[in-house]
Amino acid sequence: MSFTLDEFAQNLDGQVRGDGNLTISDVASLENATSADISYLDSNKQLKAALASSAAAILTTAELAETAQKRGCQVTLIVVDQPQAAFIEVMLRFRPMPPRSTIGISPRAIVSETAVLGEGSNLFPNAYIGENVTLGKNCEVGPGAVIQDGCTLGDDCIVHANAVLYRNVTLGNRVIIHANAVLGADGFGYRFVNGEFIRIPHTGSVIIEDDVEIGAATTVDRGMIGATVIGKGTKLDNQVMIAHNCQIGKHNVYASQVGIAGSCTIGDYVQMGGQAGIVDHVTIGTGTKIGGKAGVVSNLPDGGAYHGIPAVNEKEAIRNHFGIQRLPELRQQVKQLSEQLAELQQQQPTTESDQLEIKSAA
Amino acid sequence: MSFTLDEFAQNLDGQVRGDGNLTISDVASLENATSADISYLDSNKQLKAALASSAAAILTTAELAETAQKRGCQVTLIVVDQPQAAFIEVMLRFRPMPPRSTIGISPRAIVSETAVLGEGSNLFPNAYIGENVTLGKNCEVGPGAVIQDGCTLGDDCIVHANAVLYRNVTLGNRVIIHANAVLGADGFGYRFVNGEFIRIPHTGSVIIEDDVEIGAATTVDRGMIGATVIGKGTKLDNQVMIAHNCQIGKHNVYASQVGIAGSCTIGDYVQMGGQAGIVDHVTIGTGTKIGGKAGVVSNLPDGGAYHGIPAVNEKEAIRNHFGIQRLPELRQQVKQLSEQLAELQQQQPTTESDQLEIKSAA
Amino acid sequence: MSFTLDEFAQNLDGQVRGDGNLTISDVASLENATSADISYLDSNKQLKAALASSAAAILTTAELAETAQKRGCQVTLIVVDQPQAAFIEVMLRFRPMPPRSTIGISPRAIVSETAVLGEGSNLFPNAYIGENVTLGKNCEVGPGAVIQDGCTLGDDCIVHANAVLYRNVTLGNRVIIHANAVLGADGFGYRFVNGEFIRIPHTGSVIIEDDVEIGAATTVDRGMIGATVIGKGTKLDNQVMIAHNCQIGKHNVYASQVGIAGSCTIGDYVQMGGQAGIVDHVTIGTGTKIGGKAGVVSNLPDGGAYHGIPAVNEKEAIRNHFGIQRLPELRQQVKQLSEQLAELQQQQPTTESDQLEIKSAA
Repeated sequence: MSFTLDEFAQNLDGQVRGDGNLTISDVASLENATSADISYLDSNKQLKAALASSAAAILTTAELAETAQKRGCQVTLIVVDQPQAAFIEVMLRFRPMPPRSTIGISPRAIVSETAVLGEGSNLFPNAYIGENVTLGKNCEVGPGAVIQDGCTLGDDCIVHANAVLYRNVTLGNRVIIHANAVLGADGFGYRFVNGEFIRIPHTGSVIIEDDVEIGAATTVDRGMIGATVIGKGTKLDNQVMIAHNCQIGKHNVYASQVGIAGSCTIGDYVQMGGQAGIVDHVTIGTGTKIGGKAGVVSNLPDGGAYHGIPAVNEKEAIRNHFGIQRLPELRQQVKQLSEQLAELQQQQPTTESDQLEIKSAA
Repeated sequence: MSFTLDEFAQNLDGQVRGDGNLTISDVASLENATSADISYLDSNKQLKAALASSAAAILTTAELAETAQKRGCQVTLIVVDQPQAAFIEVMLRFRPMPPRSTIGISPRAIVSETAVLGEGSNLFPNAYIGENVTLGKNCEVGPGAVIQDGCTLGDDCIVHANAVLYRNVTLGNRVIIHANAVLGADGFGYRFVNGEFIRIPHTGSVIIEDDVEIGAATTVDRGMIGATVIGKGTKLDNQVMIAHNCQIGKHNVYASQVGIAGSCTIGDYVQMGGQAGIVDHVTIGTGTKIGGKAGVVSNLPDGGAYHGIPAVNEKEAIRNHFGIQRLPELRQQVKQLSEQLAELQQQQPTTESDQLEIKSAA
Repeated sequence: MSFTLDEFAQNLDGQVRGDGNLTISDVASLENATSADISYLDSNKQLKAALASSAAAILTTAELAETAQKRGCQVTLIVVDQPQAAFIEVMLRFRPMPPRSTIGISPRAIVSETAVLGEGSNLFPNAYIGENVTLGKNCEVGPGAVIQDGCTLGDDCIVHANAVLYRNVTLGNRVIIHANAVLGADGFGYRFVNGEFIRIPHTGSVIIEDDVEIGAATTVDRGMIGATVIGKGTKLDNQVMIAHNCQIGKHNVYASQVGIAGSCTIGDYVQMGGQAGIVDHVTIGTGTKIGGKAGVVSNLPDGGAYHGIPAVNEKEAIRNHFGIQRLPELRQQVKQLSEQLAELQQQQPTTESDQLEIKSAA
């Protein structure tokens, strides 16, 4: 399968700058592209890679095209409004996503008699569907995935292989649960009685709203009384931990290995870098950005950026960082001051009598 | 199902302060409660939430009841000794835990002929029981959970869905293993020979003592020679990592994403906050508290609290934290000193002759 | 089963210093050894443990033997070139690794008709092999492990229980994938369009080269365009996260809970301590050592050691650490200087007229 650049440009509403008759047969990154590949450039940071690229063609913006050509770029460019979006369109032409499986209800899936399966359900072998589970339309449950009693899934959900939903977990529509994720395990709460930790029963549940994606091996614990909630459109990367009772807002994006302790309330559009951690019972405002590895220990208002352990606002974090970097310099200054002062003290008449001497002299 | 407050008070050995005829039909947190819910208050921190709560009634202590009523609380209160314990009792009245499954040995479980299953065993479909496995009484093995050759479980253990026990792992009584946890994978040990890392065989095992709870996706590696041990009553949250040869004491509590490197020895009643990490081969005393995200790099005696990377005792950690926060102030002070000193130096007779001049004058 | 020390010494090409007729019947660590056990000593750090050990015999080097005996060690020693290697040989004599299973293709494994299985394959019950999967010779797929459509495994691979390989993942020869690891989940990449995060399709794959070991619950995401690659001989501990598009070199060793963000390029022989994290799009040189919990935020050249958040070279990290530790001392110094200076200023004639007075006096 191959196409000419002119054909692509027409489909993408783009303009060819160079030889539109070139044919391409695949997509590649700027670094890996060969003379049969198309790539894309959507940031100044990649300009160097673009200039060194062996790609047949590069999708880019008008502005970046101009810069690239000024700097001697010889590759044919296709100018489009949104290079990444256009690139994805081209990529899917060469590499269409595998079509939805037509497996239907595998005879080797395990489905309780009380479960209700929506039309278009795909249940792979060893998928497990407990009592009173309801699946909406077109859900897919992978091999070995376990959906325990009383769970409810909306339409078009995918639960990948070996993921586990404990009892009474609710998924909205178009939710994706990746392999080995666990939703609804008991929250980590104990009472300390006579030298032992006694489990606090967790009678709440987990609610995952529409369009949420939960990464591989990510865990979301059930609430003690109410539900732990992941808001609409939120995306959790792999190995994220959301503890009991958390209320995560809409359209949050958390990178891998983030951990949110119990009973936190997080606003909408919050972003967290990898390995960030939030202590229990804090409230974080909408639009906040938490840096990678940051440790948040107190409530945060809407909209700021926070870094460090304990997390402070970006400005303070930078100040702290450079403050530490410049400590040797500061020590040096103090040492010099100390020496200069000692010298001054020596020059100085230092006894009362000396003082008097001068005065009397005067 | 609903009860009057008087009925509850009687059962809980509590005293009603307000209208005992009110009926309630569920439990809720102070924040989410409606006029048919009962909630609880057991800390001054929640006093504000209690005053703003729409709950029909609140379980609390005599002391908190007095404070709340002084501050104008209108909600009916039930005074009890232990509000949380009483609340849990009430919660379980409205929301009884699902009864133990009566599934028995599912015909779709996979059970080797050499396995010995205690009476009352529940094996869900796709549970896998290897050769020479012994299960005590009333154990439950969830769908897809894998218990490999030679494992021994005590009585009343629960191994949740898709958890994996490698060969020869031993569980005591009343142990709970959550979904997708892995016990007994080979320890991470290699010898570097001729430019390659060669696996060190791990012939040891994992021993989990009575009343331990292991969180979802938590991993405990097997020892090289002896066993990795998790002591009686210890609770590990989700995504915790315990490396080979560790000896974890009794009644430890580790929050999510804690990592303990190889061959550590940890005392009893040690608590660790989320994402804390311990380097290999250290010994940590009984009753120690390790803060969230702390990085312990040396032995710790009994009983202190430690924070930071590397972890230092709490007092030093606070001092370090404020030391960094106050660096700009310190720099400013040094700058001022420097200026004042320069001024002094200028005022000062600075040559030997000047000095002599003064002296001669005297 | 028991052997005399002389027999062992002969096999290991070692020299007995003490009673060669002693028989031993098992191996143990220095701490746990009884009078029927052999142990080993290969570092000065363990010398104290060796002197206190109840072992029947200790494998050690000539140099350590001399030191130990000078310090009064009474235990029989066997002097060998490489004590750990010799100890492993002895350990495997007493505790041979369980022989390879002879299960073959379990009738309860799920194998698609289009899969090609090499000779010597072991597929456990509930192992799942998708369409067009190819297995080399002598591969083993554990209970509940899932190998999805289009995956290719070389010879002698082991995929442990409940691990998941998404479609089109490639393993080289002798690759070990531990329980509940996930290879090939979609990379965590989204475009922000009209207030929502839209998934970027990930058409790339994951390539695991020869002799790689992947720990339990570790996740390696598939690339967007090309493959995420784990180089030959690299060992990843449990709960490690490798994000999409990363190119990990050969013979890397990463301890547990390390996280590498997207599109990083890592050289060969790189070592990372537990919970270290690397931001996206950085390049790390060959032979680099990244400390536990370090946070790398920029490219690193070959061969250094780095610590801290953000990670700096070891020397600077130590300087920063002690700089912070010594802040109270620095503050004290500044306070003293300030006091001394104030004193000087007071002693000092401070007005123009005072100055003149002195001068006139002179």
